[in-house]
Amino acid sequence: MIVGVIGLGLIGGSMAVDLRKRGFASRVLGVENEKINAEAALGIGLADEIVDLETCVAGSDVIVLAIPVGAAVKMLPKVLDLVAGTDKVVIDVCSVKEAMCQVALGHAARSSYVATHPMAGTEYSGPWAAMPGLFDGRACILCDVEESSPKAVRLVEKLYDALNMRVTYMRSDAHDMHVAYVSHISHITSFALALTVLDKEKDEKHIFDLASGGFSSTVRLAKSSADMWVPILALNHDNVLRVIDTYIDKMKEFRSAIDAYDEDKIRELIAEGNKIKRIIR
Amino acid sequence: MIVGVIGLGLIGGSMAVDLRKRGFASRVLGVENEKINAEAALGIGLADEIVDLETCVAGSDVIVLAIPVGAAVKMLPKVLDLVAGTDKVVIDVCSVKEAMCQVALGHAARSSYVATHPMAGTEYSGPWAAMPGLFDGRACILCDVEESSPKAVRLVEKLYDALNMRVTYMRSDAHDMHVAYVSHISHITSFALALTVLDKEKDEKHIFDLASGGFSSTVRLAKSSADMWVPILALNHDNVLRVIDTYIDKMKEFRSAIDAYDEDKIRELIAEGNKIKRIIR
Repeated sequence: MIVGVIGLGLIGGSMAVDLRKRGFASRVLGVENEKINAEAALGIGLADEIVDLETCVAGSDVIVLAIPVGAAVKMLPKVLDLVAGTDKVVIDVCSVKEAMCQVALGHAARSSYVATHPMAGTEYSGPWAAMPGLFDGRACILCDVEESSPKAVRLVEKLYDALNMRVTYMRSDAHDMHVAYVSHISHITSFALALTVLDKEKDEKHIFDLASGGFSSTVRLAKSSADMWVPILALNHDNVLRVIDTYIDKMKEFRSAIDAYDEDKIRELIAEGNKIKRIIR
Repeated sequence: MIVGVIGLGLIGGSMAVDLRKRGFASRVLGVENEKINAEAALGIGLADEIVDLETCVAGSDVIVLAIPVGAAVKMLPKVLDLVAGTDKVVIDVCSVKEAMCQVALGHAARSSYVATHPMAGTEYSGPWAAMPGLFDGRACILCDVEESSPKAVRLVEKLYDALNMRVTYMRSDAHDMHVAYVSHISHITSFALALTVLDKEKDEKHIFDLASGGFSSTVRLAKSSADMWVPILALNHDNVLRVIDTYIDKMKEFRSAIDAYDEDKIRELIAEGNKIKRIIR
């Protein structure tokens, strides 16, 4: 099976590596518009060849869109035009799914497309961040599979099986709501934390000297790339705003309790938050 | 040297273990009012003996207050009364320092007291959380050392040297401001994140199913104990409120930019937040 990967960054590059190493792909054709990334991807061995979009689609059995969701939304119809009337299968790996499914809706080749979200990653990006084993044991969400052909879905399940992922199924709108709560908001809270302390650093040069492991852990995601996150936050607009509003309310509850020296209320909020132990080990 | 440790939890227990293992303490006398903790501490071998406060102070050369800061503020004058007129040295290990120094101010035995903050820990607590090596390579802040006798300060430096800590010196008010930014706010953002998603779980039973490594990392500190954090937030009141206010402002900047689909502004905020890379590796 020849796999075409459009975008050889953290996700696309890591998929390419393991799909080939594990025998799912006999050959990987890469599309990578940034020259420096293309050279790195070839150098690292993420792809056998870097080609243009049309050559990639023409020469591949499965085409993986692994570019930021803003660009993927624009590119998907173009790729579907190219695969119409063939047996080729197209997937994307973006973390916003409703906008992707909407743009594919009614396309002649809609059934060749499977909307997927392999839930893995790090705060790094680019071909240099790609690594084997990134997806092992993690969850992969397939959305609105009733719009895809059963044959396409089966092939995609096989692909994610090669990556050792647990495949689950969801409506794209439910997916976007869920990830707003358990992924997107974490990034925003980290960015806001980074901005808060960086702001203070302007007056207090040594503010970071005492930064602890706890701080690093909560601020880590603030290293995440704007190229990836700007379109996610814009395209998952409604869900993200709703979560931010709840989050600001919770933060204000803390503020009021601290402001009033209301130790009972602070204790109640912390004890409630401690219930996260049930979820996170 | 006999070391008395009042409170054999994560911090006190971990200090006891390494101080004895590394030869600084020939013997550890522990004070632990919770029976279950006292039995655990003896069972694990954190202390040679569990005694009452008076026996501990009478039999120790160095006394370490390792209880939550609210209780430590109340206990410090009592311990200083007991050491007045002796060569004994008293330290505390709380993460709020101004309130501790204020309560000691003017006490006849003030110079026997050194205010310290060994910056290490985990989100767990109790004697079961104690571990060897917890402090290795981390920073320890000594506050307002001009109020302590040089002899007491030298002894405390030796103690932290045995724990492999880097000792630095600060005013207690500056310390409290710094930790509000690089430690206390991280805990509040984690608690608020936990509360936000736990709240949603009431309607959406499976909201945590997609929780990723990024979520775990940002929410980890929400497992931290209320016993420890209620008095910290109450006693570092002014600094914590100021940081929360800046933080809410930053969060609102994100909210407005997303609300207006202002991708340039979202990009600017993320790019600014990315500068944390300079600090956190």
